[in-house]
Amino acid sequence: MLEQLKQVVYDANMELPRRGLVTYTWGNVSGIDRESGLVVIKPSGVSYEDLKPEDLVVVSLDNKVIEGKLNPSSDTKTHLELYKAFPQLGGIVHTHSPYAVGWAQAGEDIPCYGTTHADYFYGPVPCARHLTPAELDEDYEKNTGTVIIEEFTKRQLDPVAVPGVICHSHGPFAWGKNAKQAVYHAVVLEEVAKMAAFTRIVNPNAAPAPQHVVNKHYMRKHGPNAYYGQKK
Amino acid sequence: MLEQLKQVVYDANMELPRRGLVTYTWGNVSGIDRESGLVVIKPSGVSYEDLKPEDLVVVSLDNKVIEGKLNPSSDTKTHLELYKAFPQLGGIVHTHSPYAVGWAQAGEDIPCYGTTHADYFYGPVPCARHLTPAELDEDYEKNTGTVIIEEFTKRQLDPVAVPGVICHSHGPFAWGKNAKQAVYHAVVLEEVAKMAAFTRIVNPNAAPAPQHVVNKHYMRKHGPNAYYGQKK
Amino acid sequence: MLEQLKQVVYDANMELPRRGLVTYTWGNVSGIDRESGLVVIKPSGVSYEDLKPEDLVVVSLDNKVIEGKLNPSSDTKTHLELYKAFPQLGGIVHTHSPYAVGWAQAGEDIPCYGTTHADYFYGPVPCARHLTPAELDEDYEKNTGTVIIEEFTKRQLDPVAVPGVICHSHGPFAWGKNAKQAVYHAVVLEEVAKMAAFTRIVNPNAAPAPQHVVNKHYMRKHGPNAYYGQKK
Amino acid sequence: MLEQLKQVVYDANMELPRRGLVTYTWGNVSGIDRESGLVVIKPSGVSYEDLKPEDLVVVSLDNKVIEGKLNPSSDTKTHLELYKAFPQLGGIVHTHSPYAVGWAQAGEDIPCYGTTHADYFYGPVPCARHLTPAELDEDYEKNTGTVIIEEFTKRQLDPVAVPGVICHSHGPFAWGKNAKQAVYHAVVLEEVAKMAAFTRIVNPNAAPAPQHVVNKHYMRKHGPNAYYGQKK
Repeated sequence: MLEQLKQVVYDANMELPRRGLVTYTWGNVSGIDRESGLVVIKPSGVSYEDLKPEDLVVVSLDNKVIEGKLNPSSDTKTHLELYKAFPQLGGIVHTHSPYAVGWAQAGEDIPCYGTTHADYFYGPVPCARHLTPAELDEDYEKNTGTVIIEEFTKRQLDPVAVPGVICHSHGPFAWGKNAKQAVYHAVVLEEVAKMAAFTRIVNPNAAPAPQHVVNKHYMRKHGPNAYYGQKK
Repeated sequence: MLEQLKQVVYDANMELPRRGLVTYTWGNVSGIDRESGLVVIKPSGVSYEDLKPEDLVVVSLDNKVIEGKLNPSSDTKTHLELYKAFPQLGGIVHTHSPYAVGWAQAGEDIPCYGTTHADYFYGPVPCARHLTPAELDEDYEKNTGTVIIEEFTKRQLDPVAVPGVICHSHGPFAWGKNAKQAVYHAVVLEEVAKMAAFTRIVNPNAAPAPQHVVNKHYMRKHGPNAYYGQKK
Repeated sequence: MLEQLKQVVYDANMELPRRGLVTYTWGNVSGIDRESGLVVIKPSGVSYEDLKPEDLVVVSLDNKVIEGKLNPSSDTKTHLELYKAFPQLGGIVHTHSPYAVGWAQAGEDIPCYGTTHADYFYGPVPCARHLTPAELDEDYEKNTGTVIIEEFTKRQLDPVAVPGVICHSHGPFAWGKNAKQAVYHAVVLEEVAKMAAFTRIVNPNAAPAPQHVVNKHYMRKHGPNAYYGQKK
Repeated sequence: MLEQLKQVVYDANMELPRRGLVTYTWGNVSGIDRESGLVVIKPSGVSYEDLKPEDLVVVSLDNKVIEGKLNPSSDTKTHLELYKAFPQLGGIVHTHSPYAVGWAQAGEDIPCYGTTHADYFYGPVPCARHLTPAELDEDYEKNTGTVIIEEFTKRQLDPVAVPGVICHSHGPFAWGKNAKQAVYHAVVLEEVAKMAAFTRIVNPNAAPAPQHVVNKHYMRKHGPNAYYGQKK
């Protein structure tokens, strides 16, 4: 069942330790088959050394386990909320990569300080608010998704142009058109968080990049007249 | 004698350099056999490249060498005090991992800034006070244990819920139900210390995570209704 | 065509990931054959794992592709402007190495804090200003070169004595007498940016090195009476 | 000639890149044969990948090359001054390791913030002053040694108890009873500089460790009643 997607999601999961984004089991990747509405996701608490493609769990968008002997990631409902709200998403990643967590724990947006950031994130990486005690009691993981969606709605952000978020006191979620691109964006988010921390060391009051520079860099890679890379 | 425990403690010791937690000989792991009350611990000043399982030293809780040709770790008495005061402990680790030492040298608790921390430590990682000159003269290593125990007693901390400490001007001790879990907690402590330092770079006045978030994350992994990971 | 230069530029490109200066495709190296006025440069958006010497693109100084099936680096025009203005240059590198980007995003010159810096850069690493919206609209990559040249002209800097620059909100360019030396200078620039950030951590108000120390170190390596290294 | 010492000094030099202390050729190790008064030192500007034991240069204490086809390290005269002033020294290392350089560039002693430091350095790592223009013009490398010696004399420091120094705007020198121990101390100095930087991130106004803790840790490793490690 969904063997090809499982392989893609497996490879994407295994890329996390290779890129230094996870310690122990602190991360998970999922991918969705939009036709069937089924999501393939890492099982909860399984170490990357032991993970095999057949361990991945298949879940429906209403959070029923369709296939798999193991419990899906404890963050599964957050993934599902994001897939339901943002139909452009094909893959989602959650990690506790240390610089992104550093910013999440400070509760600040990662400012768009430069072109490395603007090449992939059109504007700051938003920091989503804490859940209220009531939201947390009702359904922590589901409402983590709700609060992210609320943040994007409130700020009128396009999740394709801003392919990630940090959650206050928690850490980053990143996404993309598939699981592979989601991991790519998680790597970018961590690099950008690191560079922004270095900028704060140099000058705690540094200003974000001017808007015309942000526009240019985002558009030369992603706009209708993009000219970075090779024609596909 | 205690061959199985020796292998566990040896493996746990060797995990320290693999995880980047020790430079040269700056760390040691012990494990206890609660039935016999005997502790297996790394010999003092032996490099990890040269360490063999048979080099480990067996010590009684009243600090008599029961087996072994080498001197036990100079920190042995600290381990013994902790084993005597906290019967839940099966393994203890001491390292000079650099971020945890950074906090220890500043003499501050590591605040519980986020969920990475709250997943393993229920509240701040406490910083135990300096020994007085009299305590130090009487018995430095024993009283290092005494001061840690005093800190946990004074703050009414459960050493299972807070599986580690930093000692002012010194460094971290971490523990667990066995030597393997103790090392796991030492790795977590260093990661958490690193993330907390990054948070200070972003904002030196960042606030700790709200209590309801701390509760939730600790409980979803450790409470009676924990749902992280796989059923054992 | 230019097979030897292609090999040199290929090797220099491959040195970037080996030295930890690039994530994904965030960097490019070029080299020039001054006799023919032809430039060999990395193709745009090709990953380093996949790059082969024959993928390199040959471009003329007026930005015509002379040989190659792939698009040249999107930064090609910046390279060409620098080759035209600075005839001493044989190779140019652009990266997004994180500490250099940290300074670029802060918009500050990297001060010449010490001898590691003065051994290679005679004075601060200059930070070139933002392009105006008009300059950016006219030709972003060409005018990135123009603004770097303007900065060197205005400050009367010799590009041999100051073999690199950081561009505000963007990142570093470094150069040398050939592609290999250009990468060497890019590595130095990143090391120097890192050490300068560490100096800011120790003391945000640290003073640059005194001028007589800067003179001495630069001259013992590069002046007419240089005595560092072996006679060639 | 001095084949055994050459091997020791060669091995010590090769340990520098393995421990991450040098970039390119930015470091050198020497060792002295006290009987003959001859010093074996790395040649200037030779890369570590290419270095062979027979490349090492033999120099007399009055700076005559006794054996070797290559120029000795440009820092040779600094080594010689230290050997002449401190007869306890058997080996000396100079590096540009980044955290130690960070402190040197700030021109501050590395405070003795904790026991990792006190285990090897009895008190702060002193920062030696800049050379005056006259001292620099007269003989830069010789007077770098003179200024280090002046600092130790002025502060009444024992070079065995404080086996290293940082030179303002430059970087660290470390030493020991032989070349191997000198490298060990250079590694410790970098670790201690890193931990001290992390302490500054946590609290820029952190206080040094209390004197009784410093005394205890130094003495349990080095005093007449030392009990760390194994009997030799």
